[in-house]
Amino acid sequence: MANSSITAPKGFKAAGLATGVKRSGNLDLGVIHCPDGAKAAGVFTTNKIVSSAVTVCRAHVKSAKVYAAIVNSGNANACTGQKGFNDAVTMCQKTAKELNVKPNQVLLASTGIIGEPLPIKKITTGIAKATDKLSPSAKAGLDFAKAIMTTDTRAKQAVTTIRVSGKEITIAGTVKGAGMIGPNMATTIAVLTTDIDISKPLLAKALKDAIGDSLNKLTVDGHQSTNDTAMILASGAAGNRPVTSQCPRYKAFAKALKGLCSDLAKQMALDAEGATRMFTVVITGAAGKKDAARAARAVADYDLVKCAIHGADPNWGRIICAVGSCGVKLNLDKLSCKIGDISVFKQGIPVKFNAKKASKIIKAKHHTITVALGVGKDTDFCYGCDLTKGYITINADYHT
Amino acid sequence: MANSSITAPKGFKAAGLATGVKRSGNLDLGVIHCPDGAKAAGVFTTNKIVSSAVTVCRAHVKSAKVYAAIVNSGNANACTGQKGFNDAVTMCQKTAKELNVKPNQVLLASTGIIGEPLPIKKITTGIAKATDKLSPSAKAGLDFAKAIMTTDTRAKQAVTTIRVSGKEITIAGTVKGAGMIGPNMATTIAVLTTDIDISKPLLAKALKDAIGDSLNKLTVDGHQSTNDTAMILASGAAGNRPVTSQCPRYKAFAKALKGLCSDLAKQMALDAEGATRMFTVVITGAAGKKDAARAARAVADYDLVKCAIHGADPNWGRIICAVGSCGVKLNLDKLSCKIGDISVFKQGIPVKFNAKKASKIIKAKHHTITVALGVGKDTDFCYGCDLTKGYITINADYHT
Repeated sequence: MANSSITAPKGFKAAGLATGVKRSGNLDLGVIHCPDGAKAAGVFTTNKIVSSAVTVCRAHVKSAKVYAAIVNSGNANACTGQKGFNDAVTMCQKTAKELNVKPNQVLLASTGIIGEPLPIKKITTGIAKATDKLSPSAKAGLDFAKAIMTTDTRAKQAVTTIRVSGKEITIAGTVKGAGMIGPNMATTIAVLTTDIDISKPLLAKALKDAIGDSLNKLTVDGHQSTNDTAMILASGAAGNRPVTSQCPRYKAFAKALKGLCSDLAKQMALDAEGATRMFTVVITGAAGKKDAARAARAVADYDLVKCAIHGADPNWGRIICAVGSCGVKLNLDKLSCKIGDISVFKQGIPVKFNAKKASKIIKAKHHTITVALGVGKDTDFCYGCDLTKGYITINADYHT
Repeated sequence: MANSSITAPKGFKAAGLATGVKRSGNLDLGVIHCPDGAKAAGVFTTNKIVSSAVTVCRAHVKSAKVYAAIVNSGNANACTGQKGFNDAVTMCQKTAKELNVKPNQVLLASTGIIGEPLPIKKITTGIAKATDKLSPSAKAGLDFAKAIMTTDTRAKQAVTTIRVSGKEITIAGTVKGAGMIGPNMATTIAVLTTDIDISKPLLAKALKDAIGDSLNKLTVDGHQSTNDTAMILASGAAGNRPVTSQCPRYKAFAKALKGLCSDLAKQMALDAEGATRMFTVVITGAAGKKDAARAARAVADYDLVKCAIHGADPNWGRIICAVGSCGVKLNLDKLSCKIGDISVFKQGIPVKFNAKKASKIIKAKHHTITVALGVGKDTDFCYGCDLTKGYITINADYHT
């Protein structure tokens, strides 16, 4: 079996195990090790209240080289005061000690319940065990992917390769998704690895751009969590001529990274809490890029649209209502809407259409809604998913 | 039985009947008649795409005197082009003709599905029948209240009396609520009647202020519809000394109107689509009134909070998360949260609390969540309701 996990790029080992933080006994601690070091970059939540893991990771990602990343699930270590901060520091110290590196060379992320103190002894015991079983195998990478899951129903992985200056470059990633995913934040937890040799500023730029057009275009319930983190580690082990400017080699890497992140974003949408299908909202004819993004998000976030899509109901009035209420410029006499390739509202007038055919389009795993605002030339998009009883079940019962 | 309907104030007759627009055969057309005329005021949706009913009503409410109001449910007459506008005009013309007044002396509102052409013949036939059966009885008022319902499970009415310059003044109202209720818009449809003698500008001011602190503080799914309308008709039949300035008599009326609207808002929250309980979010210590309102709405609108409340789960981390993500100023070292009177998060530190007791508080029909931002002195509030599987059922199946 080909390795499609985060250990696919050269220079990475991983491990995942159960520390007992999750009562279910599922995997809840993942470690990545890059023995020769890696350049790193991160994108974090814009929530004003952040987990201590985010505070610590924001500082450590500035290190010229990092050697490891550690992620725990089942506990967000957010709103946990000074003890929470101490625990985050301890996690990095313990990992650093086991791997014989410095604490600020270890990246960190946490995900799970907010406001509960972290059972730090379980975690430190787990770190010792995990660092003992680090492996470059696909199984080890998959264990890591499983260890960062919360309400996800399956591990999400993606891998891609490109050729850069005659060398094969691999990029891989895993994400944990489900609820609390909204644009304007990084994502929940995304961990990416690559073996390209690239400068740190360009790695950061490529990550930021890729997240902006993938995970940031995804909305499940419109919310930004306290813990959202996307990180990338580049080992440089592929042996390519170092990428140090925005040359064609950089562009090829940036494009591949964006494609990989889009793949992961779509996997997240389809595995969002309770979701059974996803959709892309495309806005055209906007008076500005911001208006286009705002309208796309307004539609994708609109509970009534999400419910209609769950019911495979081509209730386009709710789409138009969402666009009208979000404050963007529009021209009602030119406003138009399509579900897939079916025109349902054209230049301000309802179109008679085949409702059964439209319903069939919505029933697919993924369909596209297009709204033309009729006032300009700008365009943008957003991914969304349906709102189901499963979302309610998961979120009414998650805490206790 | 005392009359608690919109015919309780002196000078009003009403009727409600089924025209066949609703396939269920339920009442779907309501008419109010004020034979001696009334001063009127209205507050309308801020959605940029509005029903032709809103366009017409915005114009007619400017008339010095109005004599009637007509509301249909089951069809919003929104996104219906020129035909929709013509139909809205026809509804007022037909009502005016039957009652021997001018078309611009008739107020209008529509609610229901967006984008379907109005079956105007059914409506005009209904108008002729309704104007024939107008009555000042409590039953007629209740029929009107029933006729404006869409997914509401019960008619919502409220009545109150005050004494103004030795005369008894009555104020009454009915609302249709359910989904699509959000702050920054009027509400869905609210129709208020009173027999006070008051100047038109003061009536408008009292209505705007009352809606601002009641129906605009209510959020079910955060959305503004194309049709939201609140209107008030004042017959002047109580015979009080006319209210022409912001005197104590005006203030007594404004206060009573606000109280009545708050009563109606709470009835709406408890009858929101699928809702089983409601809550009030109170924000204190904000750096400004806008921040306070924004944070209160962010919590009340947050699907994860609404789900937790449905599960009677004191998952306060989601409350803090909502506050942190909405962009308001806050001081994490002073940030505090209470569920009812139980402190769960104090000055940035989780508090050990009795989860069973907190759960019991949430299980009540109505509880209060208080969040102190710790940066200023401003305060505001918002009403919300739980998010349930019932909401999904109603909204996945509403169209077809």
